[in-house]
Amino acid sequence: MADYQAPLREMRFVLNEVFDAPALWASLPGVAGNVDPDTADAILEEAGKITAGVLAPLNREADEQGCRWNDGDVTTPEGFKEAYQTLVEGGWNGLGGNPEFGGMGMPKTLVAQFEEMMQAANMSFGLAPMLTAGACVALDAHGSPELKEKYLPKLYSGEWSGAMDLTEPHAGTDLGIIRTKAEPQDDGSYRITGTKIFITWGEHDMAENIVHLVLAKLPDAPKGPKGISMFLVPKFLVNDDGSLGERNQFGCGSLEKKMGIKASATCVMNYDGATGWLVGEENKGLAAMFTMMNYERLGVGIQGLGAAEASLQSAREYANERIQSRAPTGARQPDKAADPILVHPDVRRMLMTMKSFVEGGRAFSTYVASWLDIAKFSEDDQQREHADGMVALLTPVAKAFLTDRGLDTTILGQQVFGGHGFIREWGQEQLVRDCRITQIYEGTNGIQAMDLMGRKVVGSEGKLFELFAEDVTNFIEQNSMDAALRPYLESLAAALERLSDVTELVIKQAGENPEAVGAAAVDYLDMFGYTALAYMWAKMVKAAAEKAGNDTSGFYTGKIKTARFYYDRLLPRTVALAEGIRSGEGAMMAPDASEI
Amino acid sequence: MADYQAPLREMRFVLNEVFDAPALWASLPGVAGNVDPDTADAILEEAGKITAGVLAPLNREADEQGCRWNDGDVTTPEGFKEAYQTLVEGGWNGLGGNPEFGGMGMPKTLVAQFEEMMQAANMSFGLAPMLTAGACVALDAHGSPELKEKYLPKLYSGEWSGAMDLTEPHAGTDLGIIRTKAEPQDDGSYRITGTKIFITWGEHDMAENIVHLVLAKLPDAPKGPKGISMFLVPKFLVNDDGSLGERNQFGCGSLEKKMGIKASATCVMNYDGATGWLVGEENKGLAAMFTMMNYERLGVGIQGLGAAEASLQSAREYANERIQSRAPTGARQPDKAADPILVHPDVRRMLMTMKSFVEGGRAFSTYVASWLDIAKFSEDDQQREHADGMVALLTPVAKAFLTDRGLDTTILGQQVFGGHGFIREWGQEQLVRDCRITQIYEGTNGIQAMDLMGRKVVGSEGKLFELFAEDVTNFIEQNSMDAALRPYLESLAAALERLSDVTELVIKQAGENPEAVGAAAVDYLDMFGYTALAYMWAKMVKAAAEKAGNDTSGFYTGKIKTARFYYDRLLPRTVALAEGIRSGEGAMMAPDASEI
Repeated sequence: MADYQAPLREMRFVLNEVFDAPALWASLPGVAGNVDPDTADAILEEAGKITAGVLAPLNREADEQGCRWNDGDVTTPEGFKEAYQTLVEGGWNGLGGNPEFGGMGMPKTLVAQFEEMMQAANMSFGLAPMLTAGACVALDAHGSPELKEKYLPKLYSGEWSGAMDLTEPHAGTDLGIIRTKAEPQDDGSYRITGTKIFITWGEHDMAENIVHLVLAKLPDAPKGPKGISMFLVPKFLVNDDGSLGERNQFGCGSLEKKMGIKASATCVMNYDGATGWLVGEENKGLAAMFTMMNYERLGVGIQGLGAAEASLQSAREYANERIQSRAPTGARQPDKAADPILVHPDVRRMLMTMKSFVEGGRAFSTYVASWLDIAKFSEDDQQREHADGMVALLTPVAKAFLTDRGLDTTILGQQVFGGHGFIREWGQEQLVRDCRITQIYEGTNGIQAMDLMGRKVVGSEGKLFELFAEDVTNFIEQNSMDAALRPYLESLAAALERLSDVTELVIKQAGENPEAVGAAAVDYLDMFGYTALAYMWAKMVKAAAEKAGNDTSGFYTGKIKTARFYYDRLLPRTVALAEGIRSGEGAMMAPDASEI
Repeated sequence: MADYQAPLREMRFVLNEVFDAPALWASLPGVAGNVDPDTADAILEEAGKITAGVLAPLNREADEQGCRWNDGDVTTPEGFKEAYQTLVEGGWNGLGGNPEFGGMGMPKTLVAQFEEMMQAANMSFGLAPMLTAGACVALDAHGSPELKEKYLPKLYSGEWSGAMDLTEPHAGTDLGIIRTKAEPQDDGSYRITGTKIFITWGEHDMAENIVHLVLAKLPDAPKGPKGISMFLVPKFLVNDDGSLGERNQFGCGSLEKKMGIKASATCVMNYDGATGWLVGEENKGLAAMFTMMNYERLGVGIQGLGAAEASLQSAREYANERIQSRAPTGARQPDKAADPILVHPDVRRMLMTMKSFVEGGRAFSTYVASWLDIAKFSEDDQQREHADGMVALLTPVAKAFLTDRGLDTTILGQQVFGGHGFIREWGQEQLVRDCRITQIYEGTNGIQAMDLMGRKVVGSEGKLFELFAEDVTNFIEQNSMDAALRPYLESLAAALERLSDVTELVIKQAGENPEAVGAAAVDYLDMFGYTALAYMWAKMVKAAAEKAGNDTSGFYTGKIKTARFYYDRLLPRTVALAEGIRSGEGAMMAPDASEI
């Protein structure tokens, strides 16, 4: 198995050469004071050292050990406590946090690269900082000044960690039917009672306190999603001086046995009259949770990307080293028993597909992150509104498409290894098992597709889609004279038109039949993702083309050749997806239950 | 988790209504005496009881326990020995075996259904009878009369089990470079020395002897694949009276830790001057191994199908029982907190995709099995030659397409369960892990695609492809007046034409560039598979149509609606695949190693 190395060269290319992130940061006053190109680069470099040097080496053995539950306590695998402490000492938990409360205020475009490294190196571990960061986003946006003052600095430092408590045994996708109760107390706090499941890092031994954001219902709450409130419920109550007080009335009842991310603790949490505090307004908990979700959903997409990158690194090394059979055009290494398997066209098909998704996916996650930065930091109302629209539209695509292609990629990476890919010691099979959860949690990919197709595209009557379409169209128009881009722009324009046509069709169908949205949703998100990656590859060709002439490293010429592969072999999938969507909801909805 | 039930109704439909297997059996003298429709049905019924009642209940717990290695001995999970004994007592190991040596002589069309049940119920366990049956096929075809007399009856009874020893640490796909040596002895036996890896059920405690078929090289063997011979090497030497003698000089050095099929033993086998006997001719071992491979490769395809069926059964039950959110057209169960998730179009998309693959796949495996029966039992030379051609062409498709779609199906089945699909106790994630190996072993799916595209299609200059194309064309012509089939035949004809065009193109390209075959192979096999399943669905529509009018069970009408779904939503994928193949090998072969 290849040792994971942070792909710094790739990240610098995307940040500096494709998106000119330094110029973006300089244009946003809320960011400009916190980061400059040198700082950003130093952060990338250091992040690479910690993730590759500290987190990655723990990954394989921690998968075998898992977390251990004992009478409510959870012991993490060997090395996790020490690694967590390293992150605390480096302040990594607060990288994107609000500087007013001790965060470092770094832009998401940069933080996203750190997240990718961490998730690639050790996804089980990476979930802890990811959930803490998500909890901070919600708390920063919706918490009272007192709550923020009391909790944010310790969460940003990582001394305390965060967890999100949404799911209950009978309520997953449908949070409107949760049963956890919150009873108001005279002192302004609430008593929380109920059972939550699938709570990632809900209990562990890495931080001295764990701050849960819990969804619950007030006694008089309206039925359904409009009756949900969010509460902050710490494992240990916090005294006014910030010191830890007594243990709160809740605990971890058991750990789930899972397919993957086995080194993370997935907890059943039992609340037995625990003390909590309202975050945001009563009955507005779902909105507060969604503030966090937009960040977390991109974060989960980045998990898929990270697993894919780790798989690519190993598969590429193996394909260069493993010798087996001869090249179709004759022996390349006649002095050896066989040629490296990289000579075989089908092994190249697998690697180039992986590379297309990983590098296209990294560009896409950075593209989405740039809209998050503008939405958060721009001082221009119109620009911010525009960016908000892009974030709303692109977030479900980033979550679902990057994780779906992430799984495809890890499966290909495993296949490159043949039988060895199925054996645990090589690590490729773990990446498949770990990556698989990313398609399920934070809203299944089917739910992401419904969000995109229903709430965002149909819900805006196509207006949000137009924002994206205009962005692509502008790129095509601005570059129509660029010789390097000419081989791509026509196909890109055709893919965009195909997507626009289908968008229009489904908006029309949805007006006539409410089932049309769900019937189209997943295939539509896929089409959108493939089209968006075509756009990313065109942008990368533009950034690489003029440097490719003098390139002897293969970096820039490789970009252009990978774009060619993507356009030849993967983009055509949009044709099939469009044809499926056009067939409508009939075939799906016609069968009775007895006919399925 | 749903308890697995053998899909007897489905199997009877395919055997009796789609393919009229009883008429086929009656037409083949070598089979007609062994089986009639009543016997076949009794076998199906009994197989259903044993697989669902004995094998399936062991599946989940055995995955947790795994096999244990201790100083060369391998202990199987609880219940495996007893279950194996049940199969021995029922004579199931010899179901398809040669009656001359104690086999039951059943046709593959019937045996395939038993295999599917066994693999669906417990794939780890099912590998043992599968490998024994494969070893028997090779031995029956190539062994000397003495070897057959001595070993086949005990293998058919299951008292002894079989194993295949091909792979070595440095030689997987490329068997030409194996290093295991076979030195001829004066008594006609050979001394075998070397190390084999990935030997499934190479050692265990279920049978009293284990008969290995080992590939090795004679001292003067030519280099490469033409210098491989096959040897029978029993764990215990067998005395002339059939009793067991002393232990042979080889043993299991360790077990692999794997992603799935954890209850099976995957052994490192060390041969240290073990005594073996030549099977077939010197240096013709690979040909002997391929005799077994054609049966085994269909068998592995059936493993993919079995895992998919098990996943579908659970997902369908869950989708009917799990309530979550409301139907898009309004509440279906207003008295409950939510509706069953089956009301949601996207859940239906997943289930209908699964059903399309499982039922289409079962028809396809039976179709291939029917050609195997004709190839083996027909007394008409021309008919046998024709069937041989179909078997050669369709075997790699059955292996790769059924396992690729098998994985897709188990992943969808897991997705239907949401977060619960990731938790081990529900069983869906195990099916994904188990199914994953089927794409890798017995020749990776990339190798299957090379076999199809290179050896079969290009190698025969398209003649083998024409056999299949004629079969489909005849069906279209014979049914052109059938109103029920009209909505399908035009699309089927178009898909066949698309496949024929691409076939012609690649044959042409292959003459100019040896890399063209590998560049097209996997996408071509996919296209072939999707087209073949469209053919199967048309055949099923034909069988179901006239009964659908009076059908209140949903069985026949469900078939027709599933065909519609397949043609609307899945068959279009061939359009994208064709476009990718037409782009040629350029994008794949252009990059240097440094550019990938």
